[in-house]
Amino acid sequence: MSVAEEFTLDFGRPERIGLEEAVYAAGKSPAQIDAILEAAKARGASLLLTRLDADRFAALDPRHRDRIDHCAVSRTGIFGNRRPVTGPPRVAIVAAGTSDVPVAREAERTLTYQGRAATLFADVGVAGLWRLTRRIEEIRAHPVVIVAAGMDAALPSVVGGLVAGAIVAVPTSVGYGVAEGGRAALDAVLASCAPGITVVNIDNGYGAACAALRLLHAAQRLAEAP
Amino acid sequence: MSVAEEFTLDFGRPERIGLEEAVYAAGKSPAQIDAILEAAKARGASLLLTRLDADRFAALDPRHRDRIDHCAVSRTGIFGNRRPVTGPPRVAIVAAGTSDVPVAREAERTLTYQGRAATLFADVGVAGLWRLTRRIEEIRAHPVVIVAAGMDAALPSVVGGLVAGAIVAVPTSVGYGVAEGGRAALDAVLASCAPGITVVNIDNGYGAACAALRLLHAAQRLAEAP
Amino acid sequence: MSVAEEFTLDFGRPERIGLEEAVYAAGKSPAQIDAILEAAKARGASLLLTRLDADRFAALDPRHRDRIDHCAVSRTGIFGNRRPVTGPPRVAIVAAGTSDVPVAREAERTLTYQGRAATLFADVGVAGLWRLTRRIEEIRAHPVVIVAAGMDAALPSVVGGLVAGAIVAVPTSVGYGVAEGGRAALDAVLASCAPGITVVNIDNGYGAACAALRLLHAAQRLAEAP
Amino acid sequence: MSVAEEFTLDFGRPERIGLEEAVYAAGKSPAQIDAILEAAKARGASLLLTRLDADRFAALDPRHRDRIDHCAVSRTGIFGNRRPVTGPPRVAIVAAGTSDVPVAREAERTLTYQGRAATLFADVGVAGLWRLTRRIEEIRAHPVVIVAAGMDAALPSVVGGLVAGAIVAVPTSVGYGVAEGGRAALDAVLASCAPGITVVNIDNGYGAACAALRLLHAAQRLAEAP
Amino acid sequence: MSVAEEFTLDFGRPERIGLEEAVYAAGKSPAQIDAILEAAKARGASLLLTRLDADRFAALDPRHRDRIDHCAVSRTGIFGNRRPVTGPPRVAIVAAGTSDVPVAREAERTLTYQGRAATLFADVGVAGLWRLTRRIEEIRAHPVVIVAAGMDAALPSVVGGLVAGAIVAVPTSVGYGVAEGGRAALDAVLASCAPGITVVNIDNGYGAACAALRLLHAAQRLAEAP
Amino acid sequence: MSVAEEFTLDFGRPERIGLEEAVYAAGKSPAQIDAILEAAKARGASLLLTRLDADRFAALDPRHRDRIDHCAVSRTGIFGNRRPVTGPPRVAIVAAGTSDVPVAREAERTLTYQGRAATLFADVGVAGLWRLTRRIEEIRAHPVVIVAAGMDAALPSVVGGLVAGAIVAVPTSVGYGVAEGGRAALDAVLASCAPGITVVNIDNGYGAACAALRLLHAAQRLAEAP
Amino acid sequence: MSVAEEFTLDFGRPERIGLEEAVYAAGKSPAQIDAILEAAKARGASLLLTRLDADRFAALDPRHRDRIDHCAVSRTGIFGNRRPVTGPPRVAIVAAGTSDVPVAREAERTLTYQGRAATLFADVGVAGLWRLTRRIEEIRAHPVVIVAAGMDAALPSVVGGLVAGAIVAVPTSVGYGVAEGGRAALDAVLASCAPGITVVNIDNGYGAACAALRLLHAAQRLAEAP
Amino acid sequence: MSVAEEFTLDFGRPERIGLEEAVYAAGKSPAQIDAILEAAKARGASLLLTRLDADRFAALDPRHRDRIDHCAVSRTGIFGNRRPVTGPPRVAIVAAGTSDVPVAREAERTLTYQGRAATLFADVGVAGLWRLTRRIEEIRAHPVVIVAAGMDAALPSVVGGLVAGAIVAVPTSVGYGVAEGGRAALDAVLASCAPGITVVNIDNGYGAACAALRLLHAAQRLAEAP
Repeated sequence: MSVAEEFTLDFGRPERIGLEEAVYAAGKSPAQIDAILEAAKARGASLLLTRLDADRFAALDPRHRDRIDHCAVSRTGIFGNRRPVTGPPRVAIVAAGTSDVPVAREAERTLTYQGRAATLFADVGVAGLWRLTRRIEEIRAHPVVIVAAGMDAALPSVVGGLVAGAIVAVPTSVGYGVAEGGRAALDAVLASCAPGITVVNIDNGYGAACAALRLLHAAQRLAEAP
Repeated sequence: MSVAEEFTLDFGRPERIGLEEAVYAAGKSPAQIDAILEAAKARGASLLLTRLDADRFAALDPRHRDRIDHCAVSRTGIFGNRRPVTGPPRVAIVAAGTSDVPVAREAERTLTYQGRAATLFADVGVAGLWRLTRRIEEIRAHPVVIVAAGMDAALPSVVGGLVAGAIVAVPTSVGYGVAEGGRAALDAVLASCAPGITVVNIDNGYGAACAALRLLHAAQRLAEAP
Repeated sequence: MSVAEEFTLDFGRPERIGLEEAVYAAGKSPAQIDAILEAAKARGASLLLTRLDADRFAALDPRHRDRIDHCAVSRTGIFGNRRPVTGPPRVAIVAAGTSDVPVAREAERTLTYQGRAATLFADVGVAGLWRLTRRIEEIRAHPVVIVAAGMDAALPSVVGGLVAGAIVAVPTSVGYGVAEGGRAALDAVLASCAPGITVVNIDNGYGAACAALRLLHAAQRLAEAP
Repeated sequence: MSVAEEFTLDFGRPERIGLEEAVYAAGKSPAQIDAILEAAKARGASLLLTRLDADRFAALDPRHRDRIDHCAVSRTGIFGNRRPVTGPPRVAIVAAGTSDVPVAREAERTLTYQGRAATLFADVGVAGLWRLTRRIEEIRAHPVVIVAAGMDAALPSVVGGLVAGAIVAVPTSVGYGVAEGGRAALDAVLASCAPGITVVNIDNGYGAACAALRLLHAAQRLAEAP
Repeated sequence: MSVAEEFTLDFGRPERIGLEEAVYAAGKSPAQIDAILEAAKARGASLLLTRLDADRFAALDPRHRDRIDHCAVSRTGIFGNRRPVTGPPRVAIVAAGTSDVPVAREAERTLTYQGRAATLFADVGVAGLWRLTRRIEEIRAHPVVIVAAGMDAALPSVVGGLVAGAIVAVPTSVGYGVAEGGRAALDAVLASCAPGITVVNIDNGYGAACAALRLLHAAQRLAEAP
Repeated sequence: MSVAEEFTLDFGRPERIGLEEAVYAAGKSPAQIDAILEAAKARGASLLLTRLDADRFAALDPRHRDRIDHCAVSRTGIFGNRRPVTGPPRVAIVAAGTSDVPVAREAERTLTYQGRAATLFADVGVAGLWRLTRRIEEIRAHPVVIVAAGMDAALPSVVGGLVAGAIVAVPTSVGYGVAEGGRAALDAVLASCAPGITVVNIDNGYGAACAALRLLHAAQRLAEAP
Repeated sequence: MSVAEEFTLDFGRPERIGLEEAVYAAGKSPAQIDAILEAAKARGASLLLTRLDADRFAALDPRHRDRIDHCAVSRTGIFGNRRPVTGPPRVAIVAAGTSDVPVAREAERTLTYQGRAATLFADVGVAGLWRLTRRIEEIRAHPVVIVAAGMDAALPSVVGGLVAGAIVAVPTSVGYGVAEGGRAALDAVLASCAPGITVVNIDNGYGAACAALRLLHAAQRLAEAP
Repeated sequence: MSVAEEFTLDFGRPERIGLEEAVYAAGKSPAQIDAILEAAKARGASLLLTRLDADRFAALDPRHRDRIDHCAVSRTGIFGNRRPVTGPPRVAIVAAGTSDVPVAREAERTLTYQGRAATLFADVGVAGLWRLTRRIEEIRAHPVVIVAAGMDAALPSVVGGLVAGAIVAVPTSVGYGVAEGGRAALDAVLASCAPGITVVNIDNGYGAACAALRLLHAAQRLAEAP
């Protein structure tokens, strides 16, 4: 079996579920990623690459690298063209602390790749409540709110009690001791005392953005057939 | 401190976050629940009670019991009046197996309590894929899909690859051995290979419904200001 | 070895560490507890019994039961005389939800047993932030704050950002799914983004009160030799 | 005790249990592996080395390296001669995603080392069900099916509902957050809603192949004495 | 939705995967089980019920109970007719200790329900190796060996080194302390030093039997087309 | 969003909760830390940096490095001026073993940064009880005692039975096997048989010092209004 | 297979490993235990039954019950004759708290069943160090020391630093919160800072006694051939 | 506090508990280790250093390195003189696999450092039972048996059923997947079906040797006063 047989890109995905194909780079060899990019290029398709850290990016075929808009902070790469971003931002992305920014940016880049604008809010964690309250009206203006938080992940619960929109919490692996790896943050958001908060995997900014895209898609259908 | 001082009902919640006040009965004494119902009655308010199992229900003041529409399967009680259900069902609630029905019903009762219709689909787990595929078009017709699944919780991933709408997975505690308590199901849905699936706590049908209500609320805002 | 040899009461403890001897009833047989009470009576000593639930209390020798002030909610019993409570309340005990009240009461009873007043605040969790903010000034008036919270245990972090006093968080086992048993709450408070919050074991209202007593004792020493 | 006394090769194993001796390289020093290869060479025996990554391979005695057919992807080395592969492929090896290919290849190399052919199927995970269904007939043609899957490991359940043959699931450590290390995938396959799926250790492609060899061995006995 | 809509029996399963439909009773209400039995009766079908403990069995409709061959030890019920058992036993079921017998019997009943004979071996754990060695030749005579073991689950490793056939290990929840719940036994068999041992969920005698049935099915295909 | 928007320093914190702003460096990029230092400098403020290991320190802008008093052992940096240390030491910091010294020093540096003196006691673990008993009187002279201990973390329990002051235990990640990561030490101190011991996160010397500062602050208030 | 075939008593065990056969009652049905006792009676053998709680004991055949010396505290039964206890006590059994006495008694009964005397010391935990130090000389007089301790299990570490003899620690499941089930105590003793402490399973008083018997057996061999 | 104040060597330990002082190098800085060696040298004392890997050894002061007998395999260093080894080997050290040899050697070096001889047996794991049975008589000749085993750690149970002497099991971290880190091996030996097996921490060859030394010490006392 050649490397080219080791993957099957799902170009019918946008039509089926409204989400562009994306490639999780962390578990793949440079040879596999290069073959995938080759296949996308042959088809004239764009691709979002997630978990593409600087080392992995540097190991790719230079001809592919040149066609990738790479962001080291969020470890994302956009290969080929992307849709133009249209309309006002409907998604607020809130990072509890400065250390949660990379995850927030992964969500932001995923949204813009699919043509959706988003607004970022950083370092508004609950230990200094004034940092949140002075911006809560702005956040509330977005019907969908993604909240990235590590450590005790108390922020989604507080936001959940203040905002009526849809909330997607992304626990992050920020922290040490019991917080290490993000399980404490994950369990906290799953056990949130604020009702109706949904959760995605630890550090999964990409998944949170996809959830937001699904929601915007559903909203559009409802607007068309209320 | 008297029992009446042990709680503070949040009647401003609907206006703030679009969700009616609800009472988690599992951790409260009958005396506490009776005092809460008394306070709601005094105000002419309705209340949803969750995790109100048959024993706990039977221990309440008979005058309160008479005003409660209790469902033993979903362990929910509706105290006082409820909003009329209007409009077509926008939420599909899918139970992977027969044993997941109680959690699905908790979600359904929470939605109807707040005036939203839902459609239930039961026993469509992936071990007999034909059971799902013969109903997938019906499911797809709903912009929001709640999927309750225990054991390996493979169903949300399969549904996630077939449906474009918003998906809220509820892992259930159905199963034994490694599945006991629902952690295996929870981790499976969090690690789903299908993008954009959101998750709530184990057995949290109430939370999944609240998430759906938030989504519908957000959709409405978007429809009004696209 | 007779039952009387199975325990050694530590009546020198108050002098050594400032805390009265207490008996953890959960792991002991009624015969053992009765023998302990007999020994205390012989010495004219008082005793605090923790984790003495209704069944265990009912199984004791009736002559001992008559001398015990038992509280079923907090599962505590006070045998013999107690010190008079003097001075204004220096400890605020905050219960995030109504279900956390039993743990809060265990702390309160431990404090009053040793002659210290406390103020209880219940159901001020962060999902409805107004419930906390309307009482925060009162809480702030106490130099020591015990916060009992289950589920996501977000309250101690918020309080920790608003209050300058010493904070002892007591995670509780309130909740289900990932919250069951209290480990999620425990990890959340240990990983708190608010600095200087200390923690005791899950559901350990007794321990939180003892920590407060140690602190008040230390304060007294400092006041005497600043 | 010299290095030569630190191991005891089990050359009687094929006769006893039908499986050639193999050496788990990960826990051994280069000196130990070299001594083992020396002993095999002296006896004219072949050996399969597992978990022999590129660094460990490079650290071996060059004279041994020259006699090893090394595969960096699967981290396997075949020392000396191997049996010729005969007969049609009886084992299908299915890799859910591209990232599961290394584990699948370890299984394939173990089978071919022992003279058994296998067919690989890659990137047929359930998030795009069409990728599986278009190949299911081919997979079904093999009486034994090995399925390597990480993250939520939903594929073995779906395959288990579509295929009558023996199924050996290999959970992989592919993924991050709750999927990290492979425990989520392992628990999912153990809790599978499809009956009769067997499981081996995380990333244990070698063990899955050995299980397949045992199955083929058992089948042969049954064919001879039905 | 009525109870009758809460399940979908999969009567096409035998043809699809070679295994009769079975009903996991533990998670279902008596009303659900009765409705399922009613549906099976209407179709003239048989059913295997697993995890049907004495209390759950007693709660069923008496007319259904009369048609069920119930075994309290293995908590299994066979509803309706069963296939005649034909041919010599091809499966050895080995219980490490006396306490593992219920799990072994669940496997045995599942096999005989589908017309396959099995031989049971009990209390042959490795702490008294002579108990195993005196029976190993008998065990070896079966091409498929199911080994049920709790606590340290050392038996499957020893059997795996002595027997060439296919081995399915069933860890059991027998034991206390670190052994409680069966995770220690599960991890031990997954980490077995003997190659090619496959594993099913804790206490899953039913699943082990299904795995054996899959294997016998595969063997038959191989015998027909070698 | 620029780097400068990724953080919001909380310069009102001292007034609000009595603790200076500090920066957790581990989760931040050098660019983020440099921007934070720039902002502090612009305001003429000091900052404590925690988890600033040698590599991270070396990656900072040289102009900032020159203004930082860095301690590699405790991985702390003090930027700008610090308060003068006044008064006798009120806090004893006890390190169970030599390996616990870095955590103890993080606590010490945090205290001195805020103008509080402390006394360090090292290698007084209970395996050689004489090492503790010969210094216990000195320790007892401090109204607040921080105890850093890894492995079995038995020391806080013994100290807790000998000392009347407030005790803050810091479990450390020192050790291997079951002790690795510090969870064993954490659970031991939470489960301490000595009453009134409080706990902070694993390796959180900074948090222990903050807790001590809160205690001293509370004591001061009590001294002023007894 | 009849019940009589479900067990194989190992009467050769004393000669092989120096320990009498014993029966773990917790996992066995009354029918199984009765059959085992019948077999022992037929052979004129004695038996030790462990984990035989009052309910299980009451369910046995009355003719067997009459021949059993049952102890409800330690849940042990001695069937038939026992060896006379000879010689001075060589084993000290130390129970940290009163709640650890049942485990200590299980050890004591196992020792006396095999003819060895032991001395019990109860409630000497480290939170009141004087309780230990006043008895340490007596404890030291025994060459083998069993220490049963729950919660933080700090006692074995302290004893290990004071006593030169062989130490077997038995963690107990006494405690709640993080201590529940005994894992915290187990990890603490495994991670003990005192060297040479050995450990058995949680609550395994029987196993600790067997370890002591092995030690005494070994000592006897050494004494005979120094 | 200077580095010299960061440790307190316990030179009275041999007299108190029969074990020489040893230094756990893993958690200490080179500066700390050098200071400790300086102090030992000043006193003319020897020291055993454990977990002193090649890098840490290379970082020490060359003058100290020259006085250390370092073994890279077992990561142990012996500083200064050691006692002469006298008498026949009383301790058998059994390594289940070749990968367990480093732990076995740590035990061996600890014993010889204190003047005790030991015999090593390697690669006698139960997957090829003949490797054990051919050497079991030799092993049995030693009154104390240390068994190091990773993965499923089945060997101690089998040895425990064949040998009457004292058994100390050392679980090792050898293995991957569920075996990674050694918890599976640890739990298996704690849950052993063979009675009287004692356990030390994962990879703790040093601790196993200390346990053996305690036992030999106890035996000597018993021989002197039987």
